[in-house]
Amino acid sequence: MAEYHLDPFVLGGRTLTSRLFVGTGKYASDHLIPDVLAQSGSEVITVALRRVDFAASTDNVMRHIPKTVQLLPNTSGARTAEEAVRIARLARAAGCGNWIKIEVIADNKYLLPDGYETVKATEILAREDFVVLPYISPDLMVAKALVDAGAAAVMPLGAPIGSNRGLQTKELLRILIAEIALPVIVDAGIGRPSEACEAMEMGAAACLVNTAIASANDPVAMAKAFGDAVAAGRQAYRAGVGPISQLAQASSPLTGFLHS
Amino acid sequence: MAEYHLDPFVLGGRTLTSRLFVGTGKYASDHLIPDVLAQSGSEVITVALRRVDFAASTDNVMRHIPKTVQLLPNTSGARTAEEAVRIARLARAAGCGNWIKIEVIADNKYLLPDGYETVKATEILAREDFVVLPYISPDLMVAKALVDAGAAAVMPLGAPIGSNRGLQTKELLRILIAEIALPVIVDAGIGRPSEACEAMEMGAAACLVNTAIASANDPVAMAKAFGDAVAAGRQAYRAGVGPISQLAQASSPLTGFLHS
Amino acid sequence: MAEYHLDPFVLGGRTLTSRLFVGTGKYASDHLIPDVLAQSGSEVITVALRRVDFAASTDNVMRHIPKTVQLLPNTSGARTAEEAVRIARLARAAGCGNWIKIEVIADNKYLLPDGYETVKATEILAREDFVVLPYISPDLMVAKALVDAGAAAVMPLGAPIGSNRGLQTKELLRILIAEIALPVIVDAGIGRPSEACEAMEMGAAACLVNTAIASANDPVAMAKAFGDAVAAGRQAYRAGVGPISQLAQASSPLTGFLHS
Amino acid sequence: MAEYHLDPFVLGGRTLTSRLFVGTGKYASDHLIPDVLAQSGSEVITVALRRVDFAASTDNVMRHIPKTVQLLPNTSGARTAEEAVRIARLARAAGCGNWIKIEVIADNKYLLPDGYETVKATEILAREDFVVLPYISPDLMVAKALVDAGAAAVMPLGAPIGSNRGLQTKELLRILIAEIALPVIVDAGIGRPSEACEAMEMGAAACLVNTAIASANDPVAMAKAFGDAVAAGRQAYRAGVGPISQLAQASSPLTGFLHS
Repeated sequence: MAEYHLDPFVLGGRTLTSRLFVGTGKYASDHLIPDVLAQSGSEVITVALRRVDFAASTDNVMRHIPKTVQLLPNTSGARTAEEAVRIARLARAAGCGNWIKIEVIADNKYLLPDGYETVKATEILAREDFVVLPYISPDLMVAKALVDAGAAAVMPLGAPIGSNRGLQTKELLRILIAEIALPVIVDAGIGRPSEACEAMEMGAAACLVNTAIASANDPVAMAKAFGDAVAAGRQAYRAGVGPISQLAQASSPLTGFLHS
Repeated sequence: MAEYHLDPFVLGGRTLTSRLFVGTGKYASDHLIPDVLAQSGSEVITVALRRVDFAASTDNVMRHIPKTVQLLPNTSGARTAEEAVRIARLARAAGCGNWIKIEVIADNKYLLPDGYETVKATEILAREDFVVLPYISPDLMVAKALVDAGAAAVMPLGAPIGSNRGLQTKELLRILIAEIALPVIVDAGIGRPSEACEAMEMGAAACLVNTAIASANDPVAMAKAFGDAVAAGRQAYRAGVGPISQLAQASSPLTGFLHS
Repeated sequence: MAEYHLDPFVLGGRTLTSRLFVGTGKYASDHLIPDVLAQSGSEVITVALRRVDFAASTDNVMRHIPKTVQLLPNTSGARTAEEAVRIARLARAAGCGNWIKIEVIADNKYLLPDGYETVKATEILAREDFVVLPYISPDLMVAKALVDAGAAAVMPLGAPIGSNRGLQTKELLRILIAEIALPVIVDAGIGRPSEACEAMEMGAAACLVNTAIASANDPVAMAKAFGDAVAAGRQAYRAGVGPISQLAQASSPLTGFLHS
Repeated sequence: MAEYHLDPFVLGGRTLTSRLFVGTGKYASDHLIPDVLAQSGSEVITVALRRVDFAASTDNVMRHIPKTVQLLPNTSGARTAEEAVRIARLARAAGCGNWIKIEVIADNKYLLPDGYETVKATEILAREDFVVLPYISPDLMVAKALVDAGAAAVMPLGAPIGSNRGLQTKELLRILIAEIALPVIVDAGIGRPSEACEAMEMGAAACLVNTAIASANDPVAMAKAFGDAVAAGRQAYRAGVGPISQLAQASSPLTGFLHS
């Protein structure tokens, strides 16, 4: 019997086995993070640079992240391209590596990203050899501009950050996946494993999930659920979903046993 | 670190590890069935009694089903309670065991079940010590009658058999799960792993999937996807899904790095 | 220019112009009922027999219902076919006419109907020349049994009574509309005019709306909204909805003005 | 009894009674346009400038538009802000008035708008005293930029132009309606009257519908349906939709007639 390994995901020169990215925010305790990573199988974790307190020897989120996991610092707190660029450079200088998730957010209520400033920051940072992963609205023209700007992937939202509202932008995500040559990583809004699974079935390259794991009653068990669901969705995408029909299609012979 | 095993599912006196049930219909070749079982982890398989040709030594679907797997013969082809009862008895007499999935279907277009006849067949077969699993519309009063009739579980549809249309009856499934003391096993209509995952997140005890696996481009890979998705959904149900909010909830500190 | 009158709806020998039925429950004051009827254009109103206090000269809901409006007494409170039959006969004896909405409900939480008892009551009352309108789950086999039993229409639910949850059973309603020779009147669950409009676009013959009107801030204005929405949905059904496409279809010439 | 007139919609200094805008594209014959306007009650019609052939005396769409209707020329065909600005100026010079719908589209497959170029064109044209109505993706930051640029309203899409796919962007439309001080006019994608009705219930100021009317079997009847549905949705928005509940809420007294 053939083995059923998933195809690896190559991003920023790194080969990833898991297509689930996780975050560091909102956990009751940062001590949960190693178990979240282990149970989910995730190999990429995002962290707000502000939380990286290099001076502190004890209360530093970095202490909880294994070296084998790819760090994805984010520019949370930036309101302009310029601020995002400064944070990215600080992160690299501080030893956080050259991956950067761009978040440029001027809206405090829905935390929706600013596409124009995001493209500007991406252009600058890509030229400086960052692996740039921008958080965006699912807007095709912004995504196209990010391809030209040198992004490594695009990270459109399913719903507002932390809302657990799911894939509310499915129609637009579908278009991005069909039209954009870069990996599409669904970021923000995913609230349940079934939603991450569906994003993967649609052809997303990966999902980033933070709040849905951190806000579960048992975050570590939920992390495992998300890891499995993302793998299942990728597997299903590759296995080729069968056709949908209006009428029923008998699974079993209908002209029955007893009528023959 | 704690292990994250799922809770076992006890049904008809048997302890099941997997909560995915599969079928034998519509495969390009029955030779795929052992791999479907192995990759999905499923321990229960349904088969239409008509397909069980005990005389034939070569072309018999039974040859492809390992002894360790629980056989769930179904009464496909029955149009009345009486016919279903006869098929069930024949199945047991033929050595297929005492589990029986009741299907009483008089509608050839949507293959929707007849609740009244299904209750009648269940009453009779439960008294004869069958483990009775009736296929039903998601109707609360029929489900209550089946509890009284001695069913081991209820198997409401998500959409018409073989349609791959998904959880179209979510509202009514939710009510059955909340109100019925028996396990609710979603049967029929599930087209993608994300839908099976969602049914499990809602609290379904298990899912039966046939067409969605058999009609995939790669049925064995799809079987694995469904196995993982069902496990993920159960895991999520037990981990406790976090709250949904209207507004965004920042994962990362917002009052930014650069403004402080 | 042609006039765009809607086709009339003939039910129980009466020709109706409006396809919106309303109710009498839950109003802050019964004095709103005449305006609800006038603004919505509704010509049929359902009333629980219990509320018809013939002794009381002042506090009787009947005082607020114009004679031109068709009364549709309902058997609310009945838990069995026998009780429903008794209520129907009492209603007729009391001068409420021969239309009767059968409600047989043994579930106090979701108020879901009992299909089996409903069929029994319908058989008896149809033989006694009632115009029988049974409230049902959207179950095809129950609906077929009601056709045989002599019902004048079937009234499947969109969601639990009074929940304002909308057309949660769309998949099953669509099947009833396609398969049942009687008018399908969507009853229960409709919370907004857009949902009533959609039911009509799908081919429902009419909608019954009570809670959504009575629980609005301004019930009379909401009654008008429902009247217009139901008419719009019927109009759209007859006008023939255009095809849905995956891609965009330019409304305006694309090869632009300035490029030519 | 109070009258139930809708509140007027003031836009660009004009007071509109109807909140349905229509288009001129895709009709089997332009001769249908006057009836579409009359039956829908629409007072605003969009037309691609290219279709305005002032030289032609017979084959000119303008001949079919009554003078009392507000003309809304659109910049269809423009791929940049500059081109949109040129078309707008030409339209005004040609006597089409000072309303302009900005469409800047560089994507030929989904016809999705370019937010950045749209903002640029809006800034220029608003300074030149146009009443600027820009077609946009439902992106909050673009909408905010358009407020600053002097737009008279924003016109976010529900789905790709001409797709009849409905309100696929509901989540983002809801945010625009809540956050943007300008009228939100849903443009593109609406396929059925129920969808226009729902957009209005959500608080949209108006809807623009072209393909769904033009592609109906009977466009004039469908125009009437849309006119009524939009009015119903506005009426419902003002009447205040009642609360949604998980459980049923009895409309009629439950503790029954016969049990008392």
